[in-house]
Amino acid sequence: MTKEYSEKIAILTGDPNGIGAEITIKALNTLNLPPCKIVIISNQKILNTYGKLNQNYEVLEVEYDGIITPGEISKDAGDFAFRAIKKACEIHPQYIVTAPTSKEAMHLAGHNYSGQTEVLEKFLAHDGQKAEMLFVSKDFRILLLTRHLPLKDVSKTITKEFMREKINRLSEYFKTKLNIFTPAFALCALNPHAGENGILGNEEKENMLPAVRELRENGVNITNPTPADTLFIKGVQNYIRGEKMPYDCYIACYHDQGLIPIKSIASEKTVNMTIGLDIIRTSPSHGTAFDIAGKNIANPESMIEAIKACLW
Amino acid sequence: MTKEYSEKIAILTGDPNGIGAEITIKALNTLNLPPCKIVIISNQKILNTYGKLNQNYEVLEVEYDGIITPGEISKDAGDFAFRAIKKACEIHPQYIVTAPTSKEAMHLAGHNYSGQTEVLEKFLAHDGQKAEMLFVSKDFRILLLTRHLPLKDVSKTITKEFMREKINRLSEYFKTKLNIFTPAFALCALNPHAGENGILGNEEKENMLPAVRELRENGVNITNPTPADTLFIKGVQNYIRGEKMPYDCYIACYHDQGLIPIKSIASEKTVNMTIGLDIIRTSPSHGTAFDIAGKNIANPESMIEAIKACLW
Repeated sequence: MTKEYSEKIAILTGDPNGIGAEITIKALNTLNLPPCKIVIISNQKILNTYGKLNQNYEVLEVEYDGIITPGEISKDAGDFAFRAIKKACEIHPQYIVTAPTSKEAMHLAGHNYSGQTEVLEKFLAHDGQKAEMLFVSKDFRILLLTRHLPLKDVSKTITKEFMREKINRLSEYFKTKLNIFTPAFALCALNPHAGENGILGNEEKENMLPAVRELRENGVNITNPTPADTLFIKGVQNYIRGEKMPYDCYIACYHDQGLIPIKSIASEKTVNMTIGLDIIRTSPSHGTAFDIAGKNIANPESMIEAIKACLW
Repeated sequence: MTKEYSEKIAILTGDPNGIGAEITIKALNTLNLPPCKIVIISNQKILNTYGKLNQNYEVLEVEYDGIITPGEISKDAGDFAFRAIKKACEIHPQYIVTAPTSKEAMHLAGHNYSGQTEVLEKFLAHDGQKAEMLFVSKDFRILLLTRHLPLKDVSKTITKEFMREKINRLSEYFKTKLNIFTPAFALCALNPHAGENGILGNEEKENMLPAVRELRENGVNITNPTPADTLFIKGVQNYIRGEKMPYDCYIACYHDQGLIPIKSIASEKTVNMTIGLDIIRTSPSHGTAFDIAGKNIANPESMIEAIKACLW
């Protein structure tokens, strides 16, 4: 661990051919943060191609011999994106903010990960740590129990042990990173009407409620599995009015159940957050946007929110 | 078909021991509609127990010999609720608005239907008609392809034929009842990222896209299966700003996928609508609320919206 960076936010510009460097520059120029808080992990040539920073930030140089061809999926670009993440893990900053990378470009370069989260897990996890994915906008937070999984496989994945482990990691995050010692968790049921006492599915009775009981015995403040179509009403209405969320975190059983409410209401302001490792990572909720790369028309809003999420 | 009622809205007060009569009276007193548009199908004794109407509406009397005991589940009450629906179907009004009934009370009385929708289907359907469930708030409309089904059974239910039939019924409703001849339909994918070309599920490629192609050949304007977490963003944002919806109807694969966005944003203003039969039926999106029945504290907002939905 390098002491020098332990209170800084490391910002990565992602794939050199995507919109990453552009939105990084635009976001930093908008936010005007004290340069001492920031370290950019990128390459001066790439930064110069996409804009001009209006403050003098430290740039940790990552070598890049490839050509910059906005919109192209390339092996060199994928390799650069990968080496930048590796570098960020080595300096051990307080937060890592990652602009979008291309999974395909990383695969071309021989780095066969399913996303940046898995690269971070590879370089940072120790003692059985696992990365978890939160989606966040202000104090509206959602943990996904399952992420990129076909819908038909969700039911069999959510076992009692699986739930307990994930929710314990979530509790640990609130305690160690946010100093919230008994966060209030709202648990979405898997089935409509929370299974209506078994008529519409047994998972609530057989797996979810037993997990909830054990978690409560260990001091976790969590609701019973609750019909998700009513559970989000108060949170969404409060979010619109700028009022406090009724829960510190919602726990969704699967991708759409959690992402529909937060993205519908917060759209570009939704931030993807990786927790469970020693370093918190945030990123915008969009991709490389190769179709508009290099045109100076990319919207930095989600990148701004990703950086802001490290300041609270 | 009785000509006398063919342009009227029939309003049913639901279970005599629930909040149905109370919210009916409150809603009608709030809306002040011309009495010639309305026929109440209920019982004067029940109406008198729960309030006083401020206009002189026609009441079609349904016999009720039971006692009125707010909050109780009773056989007599369930039988009354059932006979009121039967009566409504017999007079063939333009619309039927149903206050909540108790499935349990109806079962006690020997009427083993899974809800009012099925009773309406039994008395009204002809020539292979089937009832479909829409959820509506203003011009935000959602059709559920599957309704009360365990999540694990959703994937195998959504076959090509199943989709085609439901969406054709939806088109027919727009054409015959709303005079919208080529409505724009937005189709939610079943899997996250619409299956990401098969990596996260094959249902989009194998069932959903072939159904979409056949529907288009028959003139239906429908999107490809689209990731649901991004599909709803524009609609929800437009709804908040009071702007027109980007689509005439969203088509959700399952209960929570459709109900989370509409109930989160419209909450009590969400109306449940039965289409596919000759008569449109609307109802509030809540239940009998036995716990607060007879206390004169029930909120009529959803009942007001259910009646208003028949006026557009």
